[in-house]
Amino acid sequence: MLAADTVAMATGASALNERRAFVSSRITDKVAAYMDAHDFDEPTLVFDLDHAVGSYRTLAQSLAPAHIHYAVKANPEPQLVRRLVAAGCRFDAASRGEIALCLDAGADARHVSFGNTVKKVGDIAWARAHGIDLFAADATEELDKLAIHAPGARVYIRLLVEHSQADWPLSRKFGAPAEEILPLMRYARAHGLNPVGISFHVGSQTRRAEMWRPVLTEAAGVWHDARAEGFELEVLNIGGGFPAFYGDEVEAPMGYGTGVMDIVRAHFGDVPYIMAEPGRGLVAEAGAISAEVLLVSRKRPSDIARWVYLNIGKFSGLAETIDEAIRYQFDTTADGGETGPCILAGPSCDSADVLYEQRPIQMPTALRAGDRVRILNTGAYTTTYASVGFNGFPPLHVVCI
Amino acid sequence: MLAADTVAMATGASALNERRAFVSSRITDKVAAYMDAHDFDEPTLVFDLDHAVGSYRTLAQSLAPAHIHYAVKANPEPQLVRRLVAAGCRFDAASRGEIALCLDAGADARHVSFGNTVKKVGDIAWARAHGIDLFAADATEELDKLAIHAPGARVYIRLLVEHSQADWPLSRKFGAPAEEILPLMRYARAHGLNPVGISFHVGSQTRRAEMWRPVLTEAAGVWHDARAEGFELEVLNIGGGFPAFYGDEVEAPMGYGTGVMDIVRAHFGDVPYIMAEPGRGLVAEAGAISAEVLLVSRKRPSDIARWVYLNIGKFSGLAETIDEAIRYQFDTTADGGETGPCILAGPSCDSADVLYEQRPIQMPTALRAGDRVRILNTGAYTTTYASVGFNGFPPLHVVCI
Repeated sequence: MLAADTVAMATGASALNERRAFVSSRITDKVAAYMDAHDFDEPTLVFDLDHAVGSYRTLAQSLAPAHIHYAVKANPEPQLVRRLVAAGCRFDAASRGEIALCLDAGADARHVSFGNTVKKVGDIAWARAHGIDLFAADATEELDKLAIHAPGARVYIRLLVEHSQADWPLSRKFGAPAEEILPLMRYARAHGLNPVGISFHVGSQTRRAEMWRPVLTEAAGVWHDARAEGFELEVLNIGGGFPAFYGDEVEAPMGYGTGVMDIVRAHFGDVPYIMAEPGRGLVAEAGAISAEVLLVSRKRPSDIARWVYLNIGKFSGLAETIDEAIRYQFDTTADGGETGPCILAGPSCDSADVLYEQRPIQMPTALRAGDRVRILNTGAYTTTYASVGFNGFPPLHVVCI
Repeated sequence: MLAADTVAMATGASALNERRAFVSSRITDKVAAYMDAHDFDEPTLVFDLDHAVGSYRTLAQSLAPAHIHYAVKANPEPQLVRRLVAAGCRFDAASRGEIALCLDAGADARHVSFGNTVKKVGDIAWARAHGIDLFAADATEELDKLAIHAPGARVYIRLLVEHSQADWPLSRKFGAPAEEILPLMRYARAHGLNPVGISFHVGSQTRRAEMWRPVLTEAAGVWHDARAEGFELEVLNIGGGFPAFYGDEVEAPMGYGTGVMDIVRAHFGDVPYIMAEPGRGLVAEAGAISAEVLLVSRKRPSDIARWVYLNIGKFSGLAETIDEAIRYQFDTTADGGETGPCILAGPSCDSADVLYEQRPIQMPTALRAGDRVRILNTGAYTTTYASVGFNGFPPLHVVCI
């Protein structure tokens, strides 16, 4: 086998690629056609703008009357933001940089919320000066900053949810406990701000509409308490959590959206302005990464699991594999035959740059160096997570089509 | 207390900074002077080139006759690499990008090793064409690639160590088990390569020389077996693992280096060429990051631990806090009084961007938004780990002085 491998190697990686092709491709037709027509020397995300705009329209329709505020951090490609502005999308920004991106792309400042509960005071003042009038907060200290640098602004208070059923409930980093929401609204009002509503996040990858129910019940309790105290709430921000497909079954978008809104209506009644902040759910499935196998080896000839090293890793775009959180799906040019368990690792000299080891993944036994790999549904949280040049490797290359 | 905070905030963050100063500064005098004289709007690494060159000289002296091959990935600032070339340092590169950096800085190709056991075939050929003649490998499949694209090259085989006493033993990503080293050397020779030696890594943060003993014993067994079989070994690469101070006691550099070399001599006898690859141990203590507190809050008034949010996090330079691995030390402008436990988090909207939570850190009870923070000994593994623009935040800014 080793001798045969050597012969195969002697023909060079490009010859291997000519001989091998993708058996199936679970990516958009446009992305597949583009990848088939191009060779990529570096890991490259190919992103289908039409698919993302289509996802926006589906979300907008299924979640109506909620307004879609796209979570820009999921994928801030300027071309994408321009297309979404043109389609009528609104935005949730995490920083001054993201707000500037939206405004540069033609977004109306009244349609951009500053959703980070942790803001630089300089950025608050800058946002306010540029017409942003909707801010998140979850602590008196943040309300103090807003009261000074954006006096009179509309603010929603973020609730820390306790009953997430998501695949990946968020940490306790953001949000105030339920019993602190009313004190924070009073504090905001006492300091000249306009407490207009609440926000929350059901958790990443909430795969079925019904999983929203416990969190919506929790949030509705706070909402009705605030109204009972005389707060004229007008903004209900139901956040993100809209799923992408990574292998586990996900409810279809139309049924999902209408299902969520049915629960929202039942719990909240008439709300003047509902906003939803899909990020992953809007862009993940629009993109796929073209990568390459650098090495396939076994530590010992008798080992069952092989080590597969790719030219992309934790520090060059796949940061969401930290703690093996997001389990990506792979197509390879060696697909179609027998598979076996693999430990998947990135190209850097960093010993921590291992993608999947606790739960090895199945890859073709025929896989070898030079084979091409497509990493599916990688349109979200990949490009801007990439490091500037760790180990001398460039950031993730992006092509928008 | 809240009212007082509001008054304090009303004076603005800059006024706070004028009132407060650093009580003590455990950083180099040059860095302290530069930080005192400048205000930083963004998180900034201030890096003392003279200190790094001094560390190189100390390591070279204490580890003599070993040659220092600086692990470029720890901090690839071109100014630093140029200074190290001038001082006589040699280099360990992880990629074509890092090799090019060293050659551009004036390094002799014969003094640069390609130490990544996972290489692109194009990069192997490119390196060989540019005069690189020393490569790492740990698998027959990698030797196949070298045999074709760098025929006749000198190669050392990386040993997977089993007896690390380091604070952070490496994962099993790199290296072959002891019983596979000789088969790999035979394979290399049979394929026209020149197997000249072995390498290993004792693990990150090996804080005392004596901790090297079990690994050196392990490696010496392989070394002498190979010589007994007739391999004329000439390169012993003892790798990295040289520590920096992050709070736990670390042996002083001179005693540490001579201590390691005493054990090396006792186990290996005369070796034509010993190479050591310090990264962290050469640059970490030369730099400190200037950062800022964005928010200090409690989830509930009765909570003991506060949440402290900085303008730098996991995705903007502090990636080594993943799994709370490296525990940085902090100086703040509020130091000097009472302290209490804090959960430390970054500025992004990412719920995973929490630096220390399992083991909260002690920070001043007087700490508040606008206070300045110096993150100590951050000259290694910070700049190039930073993301290109996650959440709209820029990469870590660097000033070399």
